[in-house]
Amino acid sequence: MINDKLPKIWYGGDYNPEQWEADIWDEDVRMFKLAGIDVATLNVFSWALNQPNEETYDFAWLDETIDRLHKNGIYTCLATSTGAHPAWMAKKYPDVLRVDYQGRKRKFGGRHNSCPNSPTYRKYSKLIAGKLAERYKDHPAVLIWHVSNEYGGYCYCDNCAAGFRTWLQQRYGTIEKLNKAWNTRFWGHTFYEWDEIVVPNELSEEWAGNRTNFQGISLDYRRFMSNSLLECYRIEYEELKKHTPDLPVTTNLMGFYPELDYFEWAKYLDVVSWDNYPSFNTPFSFTAMTHDLMRGLKSGQPFMLMEQTPSQQNWQPYNSLKRPGVMRLWSYQAVARGADTVMFFQLRRSIGACEKYHGAVIEHVGHEHTRVFRECAELGGELKQLSDSVLDARVDAKVGIIYDWENRWAVELSSGPSVGLNYVDEVHKYYAALFNRNVQTDMIGVEEDLGRYDVVIAPVMYMVKPGFADKVEAFVKDGGTFLTTFFSGIVNENDLVTTGGYPGELRKVLGIWAEEIDSLFPDQRNQIVMKSKLGSLEGSYECGLLCDLIHTEGAEVIAEYGDDFYAGMPVVTVNKFGKGEAWYVASSPDQAFLDGLLKHICDAKGIRPTLDNVPEQVEVARRVKDGKEILFLMNHGKQPAVVPVGDSPAVNLLDGTEQHGSIELPAHGVTILQRTVQA
Amino acid sequence: MINDKLPKIWYGGDYNPEQWEADIWDEDVRMFKLAGIDVATLNVFSWALNQPNEETYDFAWLDETIDRLHKNGIYTCLATSTGAHPAWMAKKYPDVLRVDYQGRKRKFGGRHNSCPNSPTYRKYSKLIAGKLAERYKDHPAVLIWHVSNEYGGYCYCDNCAAGFRTWLQQRYGTIEKLNKAWNTRFWGHTFYEWDEIVVPNELSEEWAGNRTNFQGISLDYRRFMSNSLLECYRIEYEELKKHTPDLPVTTNLMGFYPELDYFEWAKYLDVVSWDNYPSFNTPFSFTAMTHDLMRGLKSGQPFMLMEQTPSQQNWQPYNSLKRPGVMRLWSYQAVARGADTVMFFQLRRSIGACEKYHGAVIEHVGHEHTRVFRECAELGGELKQLSDSVLDARVDAKVGIIYDWENRWAVELSSGPSVGLNYVDEVHKYYAALFNRNVQTDMIGVEEDLGRYDVVIAPVMYMVKPGFADKVEAFVKDGGTFLTTFFSGIVNENDLVTTGGYPGELRKVLGIWAEEIDSLFPDQRNQIVMKSKLGSLEGSYECGLLCDLIHTEGAEVIAEYGDDFYAGMPVVTVNKFGKGEAWYVASSPDQAFLDGLLKHICDAKGIRPTLDNVPEQVEVARRVKDGKEILFLMNHGKQPAVVPVGDSPAVNLLDGTEQHGSIELPAHGVTILQRTVQA
Amino acid sequence: MINDKLPKIWYGGDYNPEQWEADIWDEDVRMFKLAGIDVATLNVFSWALNQPNEETYDFAWLDETIDRLHKNGIYTCLATSTGAHPAWMAKKYPDVLRVDYQGRKRKFGGRHNSCPNSPTYRKYSKLIAGKLAERYKDHPAVLIWHVSNEYGGYCYCDNCAAGFRTWLQQRYGTIEKLNKAWNTRFWGHTFYEWDEIVVPNELSEEWAGNRTNFQGISLDYRRFMSNSLLECYRIEYEELKKHTPDLPVTTNLMGFYPELDYFEWAKYLDVVSWDNYPSFNTPFSFTAMTHDLMRGLKSGQPFMLMEQTPSQQNWQPYNSLKRPGVMRLWSYQAVARGADTVMFFQLRRSIGACEKYHGAVIEHVGHEHTRVFRECAELGGELKQLSDSVLDARVDAKVGIIYDWENRWAVELSSGPSVGLNYVDEVHKYYAALFNRNVQTDMIGVEEDLGRYDVVIAPVMYMVKPGFADKVEAFVKDGGTFLTTFFSGIVNENDLVTTGGYPGELRKVLGIWAEEIDSLFPDQRNQIVMKSKLGSLEGSYECGLLCDLIHTEGAEVIAEYGDDFYAGMPVVTVNKFGKGEAWYVASSPDQAFLDGLLKHICDAKGIRPTLDNVPEQVEVARRVKDGKEILFLMNHGKQPAVVPVGDSPAVNLLDGTEQHGSIELPAHGVTILQRTVQA
Repeated sequence: MINDKLPKIWYGGDYNPEQWEADIWDEDVRMFKLAGIDVATLNVFSWALNQPNEETYDFAWLDETIDRLHKNGIYTCLATSTGAHPAWMAKKYPDVLRVDYQGRKRKFGGRHNSCPNSPTYRKYSKLIAGKLAERYKDHPAVLIWHVSNEYGGYCYCDNCAAGFRTWLQQRYGTIEKLNKAWNTRFWGHTFYEWDEIVVPNELSEEWAGNRTNFQGISLDYRRFMSNSLLECYRIEYEELKKHTPDLPVTTNLMGFYPELDYFEWAKYLDVVSWDNYPSFNTPFSFTAMTHDLMRGLKSGQPFMLMEQTPSQQNWQPYNSLKRPGVMRLWSYQAVARGADTVMFFQLRRSIGACEKYHGAVIEHVGHEHTRVFRECAELGGELKQLSDSVLDARVDAKVGIIYDWENRWAVELSSGPSVGLNYVDEVHKYYAALFNRNVQTDMIGVEEDLGRYDVVIAPVMYMVKPGFADKVEAFVKDGGTFLTTFFSGIVNENDLVTTGGYPGELRKVLGIWAEEIDSLFPDQRNQIVMKSKLGSLEGSYECGLLCDLIHTEGAEVIAEYGDDFYAGMPVVTVNKFGKGEAWYVASSPDQAFLDGLLKHICDAKGIRPTLDNVPEQVEVARRVKDGKEILFLMNHGKQPAVVPVGDSPAVNLLDGTEQHGSIELPAHGVTILQRTVQA
Repeated sequence: MINDKLPKIWYGGDYNPEQWEADIWDEDVRMFKLAGIDVATLNVFSWALNQPNEETYDFAWLDETIDRLHKNGIYTCLATSTGAHPAWMAKKYPDVLRVDYQGRKRKFGGRHNSCPNSPTYRKYSKLIAGKLAERYKDHPAVLIWHVSNEYGGYCYCDNCAAGFRTWLQQRYGTIEKLNKAWNTRFWGHTFYEWDEIVVPNELSEEWAGNRTNFQGISLDYRRFMSNSLLECYRIEYEELKKHTPDLPVTTNLMGFYPELDYFEWAKYLDVVSWDNYPSFNTPFSFTAMTHDLMRGLKSGQPFMLMEQTPSQQNWQPYNSLKRPGVMRLWSYQAVARGADTVMFFQLRRSIGACEKYHGAVIEHVGHEHTRVFRECAELGGELKQLSDSVLDARVDAKVGIIYDWENRWAVELSSGPSVGLNYVDEVHKYYAALFNRNVQTDMIGVEEDLGRYDVVIAPVMYMVKPGFADKVEAFVKDGGTFLTTFFSGIVNENDLVTTGGYPGELRKVLGIWAEEIDSLFPDQRNQIVMKSKLGSLEGSYECGLLCDLIHTEGAEVIAEYGDDFYAGMPVVTVNKFGKGEAWYVASSPDQAFLDGLLKHICDAKGIRPTLDNVPEQVEVARRVKDGKEILFLMNHGKQPAVVPVGDSPAVNLLDGTEQHGSIELPAHGVTILQRTVQA
Repeated sequence: MINDKLPKIWYGGDYNPEQWEADIWDEDVRMFKLAGIDVATLNVFSWALNQPNEETYDFAWLDETIDRLHKNGIYTCLATSTGAHPAWMAKKYPDVLRVDYQGRKRKFGGRHNSCPNSPTYRKYSKLIAGKLAERYKDHPAVLIWHVSNEYGGYCYCDNCAAGFRTWLQQRYGTIEKLNKAWNTRFWGHTFYEWDEIVVPNELSEEWAGNRTNFQGISLDYRRFMSNSLLECYRIEYEELKKHTPDLPVTTNLMGFYPELDYFEWAKYLDVVSWDNYPSFNTPFSFTAMTHDLMRGLKSGQPFMLMEQTPSQQNWQPYNSLKRPGVMRLWSYQAVARGADTVMFFQLRRSIGACEKYHGAVIEHVGHEHTRVFRECAELGGELKQLSDSVLDARVDAKVGIIYDWENRWAVELSSGPSVGLNYVDEVHKYYAALFNRNVQTDMIGVEEDLGRYDVVIAPVMYMVKPGFADKVEAFVKDGGTFLTTFFSGIVNENDLVTTGGYPGELRKVLGIWAEEIDSLFPDQRNQIVMKSKLGSLEGSYECGLLCDLIHTEGAEVIAEYGDDFYAGMPVVTVNKFGKGEAWYVASSPDQAFLDGLLKHICDAKGIRPTLDNVPEQVEVARRVKDGKEILFLMNHGKQPAVVPVGDSPAVNLLDGTEQHGSIELPAHGVTILQRTVQA
């Protein structure tokens, strides 16, 4: 349990009473109670208020707010307010201001605006975290620390350049090793002194965000920046822990946010929390995958849904309303996949600046007679009803999909073979094939213990870090099924190609050699022609994007290309290796092929869907606790649906009724069943 | 009359003899006379020529030019030459150079390039204006002053930053009030000292031109910049008036140019003038609307068409020729809507730099045997024929459409609900519905006296400034018909939301509450389903973009949504209020619906088209003077058209013939009739 | 012969052993020999390696490499390594770093990164070129010097600004002449001192790369930059020649690369060399045209194919594999059009940085058992077989197409009439009409002797430099056929319009006057209606883009416009002038019209295709030497094709067989025949 002071699914969100006059505060409390809200996230952006100048700190407003809420049964998720530095600090100490990708020194503005290597920022963020911890360490209302907010963005200033050089010295030891790791003899880039190295941005090696002359430099800068921001977090973390060693500490992550290596970050979070902002047209399988990734950051430990909107967003191009029931549906989707909190940005809508059209529990009209408030209040009631039944329950999965931020950086930085290659999309195609048939899946990092899984899938495993290939070989030898794809096994952790034939270190376990990699234009397709029927797969399917021209070296050919000069060459192979097998998919197939392939692979390992015969548009997910399974049936469709759940008796956790057989779900409806885990 | 020295429609344009050798000047005069040209705009970009260095002024060339033209019956519209500073000034006093939106100090180049808060620019522009006024104050050729040229562009330099802070101090008095107006507690932006405030551009709060973190800051910067440029104009204005209190002063505006609040500017112009550059595919109703706006800047006072091209433009992507007759057609469109001048850029085509492919009365070939020259000369003859018959005539309109620059800025800066919302396009849809049936319409500012109108339409009246709602209520109470739309009444003049329910201060008069605002993707549509037949409206129509989810609070529901979860909720309502009524259109409808709705509303108020049964593609407009109406029949189509004008006798002002019954217009043809105003 | 040490088509490419450990070098040599490789380009990017600091030079690695290769029969194309400066130099002497188009001082990074007016760069590039020349002047392996690499990119730093002013003083003598040439009275730009002039980039007169306020300034800056880079080349050239007067010197050009005036450069190259990187979807006629242009740079002298990829590129969006046979096909296309070398980038694929996915003879797998290596080795064998049979053979052409970089700059900088006008595409349309029927064509500069041709085509000859019109008149008077198009004869060398009627100086020879230029939107078309049958042309064809409205002044009207208000005006004319004729095509026609028109024109001059009845997709090209013609039959299609070559006996140079009658070519196949030139 995140904090057993509040042994239920926490319900609440960001609350900014400091933006309002005092006369509204009691009304806030009245409405929070109506809505069943029991947690408020405070102090996210109040640094300038808390510290009006270098010498002065003033937390009176915060004292009062925490107390007022607590008196009314509402706990506090307490932020450290360091997500945006005060204007006076920017004026007095310009080192807190970033230099941007275009090489420009920024001025005061925005948020998430502090240089992570700014001595000033590090000094004062540490100080205020310490002051907050000291002040509120014994306050009964405080449930958890929320450090800063949505860390992100890179800086390219001289302090960062100096920090980068130091980091490089620690990583490489000698300039010779760095030259080798970056292959600097290419284009005459040999460095002789550390201070010849400059940061990679539009003024030096990069352009257009992800284009670079030197993948090695750019990759290391991403590592360094992710780490620099993490250091800022850790400085506050340590300071908080000095005073409140038992209070959990988190910071809110952002799903597949590209700039930070969250697997590395998660090591220093007591609990993962994240902000879920799908667009109107985000596939719900993609949101599910993101929840699973956030759960996977700490190997399955439940996480916090720290933010979602009750209704509308403001920063999408077209900010659709969440349709009736959808906020509830998406809240339970989070819970079903591991969330032990349901929290909003924001509790009351602000009236000025850029987020005033972002939805809130309390809308601009200010009263409770709105659709949005009613839906929030209904959910609040349900979460009370659920009490602690779901808390700490685990998701059981026998399939793991590997996702790795460093691999993503390397793929995105690659010059060639195709700008069309999107790592996350390729991962999602495999995820969707499992999701579509309701097979529980974990999203895991490259450091995860593979032995926990029967099947491990590593789409576009372009970068193979030290030890990873051995781990895969051991996994397969022991009977595991491994699958990887085109453009895998190509480079090491420095983006240096493993010579001797693709897929490099994975070649042995896969039993194939990829001689060439063809890149298809968006309007070009090839075919996957099945050699024979395989489960539900037969005949031919389409593929595109990249086509490895492979030769078997022991692997069995499952399908061949149907077109072009490499028609008849293998496109899908499987290699027996020890007790297990290793699959290679040499191109990017249609979803129909992947659906069939993963069905075959799961069937072969006896991995069953959570439920069978579930209508399309209905998502089924399961958490398990104390020998019981909690089944979440979620209808994403606009039509009612019927889900057969089998004959074993189950309790509907939201109304206490007994259920079995077929469950009817209205459009956007959710049912949560609890029953004994079946054999 | 702008200046009764020349009591006819002025005909001429920009003339740059200084770009040519002396041997061509007499030829110019010969051809001007052939073309009936009687006004030349001189000295627009001659600062560097007039003032070769800081100490020296030399107007000899200008003396000679004005005299030579005057001797030949050609008057002068005299510019002050401050539209571009000299190169020596940029070198010597870099404060004249702007800092751009990207934060970069510019170097010498382009035009409209001076920082409006540059002490150097203000000093020397004032000086040269004074010298010109003193020198030419008694010259009989000078008709009017033309200050600078097409003011525009913003600057973000330190002088502007300092000026901004002073302007803010004057506006807000205390930093606390500013913090409140900008809602700076959002994202911890609280300012404690004025000099913590930085200008909003890509280095601080803005990006992509119109995206901002703080609408309040960005809105105020637009006000400040519009005002800074206006101050530059006013400095010259005052200087000119010192010497020539009776000569009118103007500067050429640019229609819907977004950066300047022309309603504010117009207060300081003796006569409005503007430059009309429609593209090949600009709807002619849009051009008409722009003329009406320019007329509306000074509450209906006739204006100057200062620039148009005789033939081609050069800066469009594809610069089509004006088809035969089109230059004449568009010239009369201006006159029909209030212009008392027809002037060109330019009289002779330059041979070098970026405008050499912009058309001119005298083309590069240099002689009069061109289609373009012939058309210019024919028009010149007609304008002589028209003499003073049209001068000072007024447009009579009973419908006013409100357009407001500050509202536009706020709408464009808004983060959410939809990037698809274009304020000007929404205004144009309503304008077009009236234009399509030839109902005379005024484009008016928010400060206009509404009592002049029977119907006032305020599309997307997002920002409601102090007093405006009261004015609307009084107008409706008195029997007026008011119409506004979705996304209206949302914020005050600082872009702070009016709490208590949309449409805020307009809620009472409209008798509705907008609970939510749905944003539709470009491919999404909803339906407007009529509750019953209303005039010509029946059945259902399409709508999109934004859909307010409204509840009536006394208003009658005219139509409901046909789709989505809010099907059946009101989409069009009308509220009886006092003696009048207030309409609300909760989404952006198809043109067909608006055509029908405005027909109904006008019919109900007895507002008739200028003429009935006019073929599509024919525009009819009317000016009224001394009890007579002057009817302009303008065929924008490629086919001839017949227009029934009724049986009262009329004089064709271009040929003196008497006309009644049906008038035949050739393709692109124009007929101008004068007759007694009918009851 | 480029260098008679190696009297055959040189075969090899860029080789970077310094990127590898020593243990691979012998393996490289073994594989080069397998592939028939006899030339390696060394030292292209090794400056940082050769000169680890300001005082030290170390060429040991280069000594060894040249020797090792030479011992194995492989010659060296020796680069000077100045294509990228060392990091230490950038740190110590920031003047080597460029200021970019956005006005930003760059930091160390990339390649082709040196300011061409940097004193440091000029000093040290000269020094190292001298050291290399001195060291290797007597080495028997060195065939040719390769100065720097792919010169390109502009700089806008203060050194360049100072250099520009000096260059301008030399060009114009007085500031008055400069003001006149740039037409600076436009927009008040008059300069009084040289140092008021600033370089044209985004901070001053330009934006978006090719948009400018002052074409004259921008045009001169392109001239100056092209010349500045050329000066850098020439400094090295002179230094090399001091020590090795007899060794040829080149630098690798890039076809239609826009930034440098290669006709000017070619004067200082002993032999032209270039890098051929067509995309998957580049028309093969475009590649042919580029080869012909590279040959035309030195009036037909054979050139070097310095770089092409054996297989894949890496920097295209989608990097397709070269299909089997295509590398050979495209290699022979180069040879057929004048190349005496076939060289690759690169011999061994690098493993790090941005070109690691660029193909190579030796792929990452490292052995010879790859498709790519096999194809390279087969071609190597064939080139040995060809020996010196093709060397120095000339292409005989009676048609010349004029292409001019300065004209291109002026067209691209033009503001109006249409952004759709692409000079190179218009040139290619005319080239393709000749290519499609296998008529040999030279691509020539404006300084070329026109007397060498029967037909000269100058599409979009917008800029007419001094003397050019006279040359055209003389050419036509003497019986030549000249053709030009819309938007020709408009400006002089300073982009100042020639007044008195378009097409200016060409008006007399063409016998027409273009009164107006209409610009069509991309979806607009007009028709070319033939007045009567002309060869294969009859009926009507489509045209678009720009439409000159022309009047004949003696010319015969061949076709008229079919649409719009200028229907019936001439669109294609021909003017008898002396013994010849001059054609004018007033719009941009469909390819079908041009195919027919050029067939007619060639037929009239007795210019025959190299072969008749050649299937589409088959390219035929001819080189001539010592009374013999060498015919290259090249099948670009995916299907086999049969080419009738006539009955005169010919030798197949690749297998020694005798051939006549019909030759069968497989898909992507090539046959090379040698036979006596026929009358």
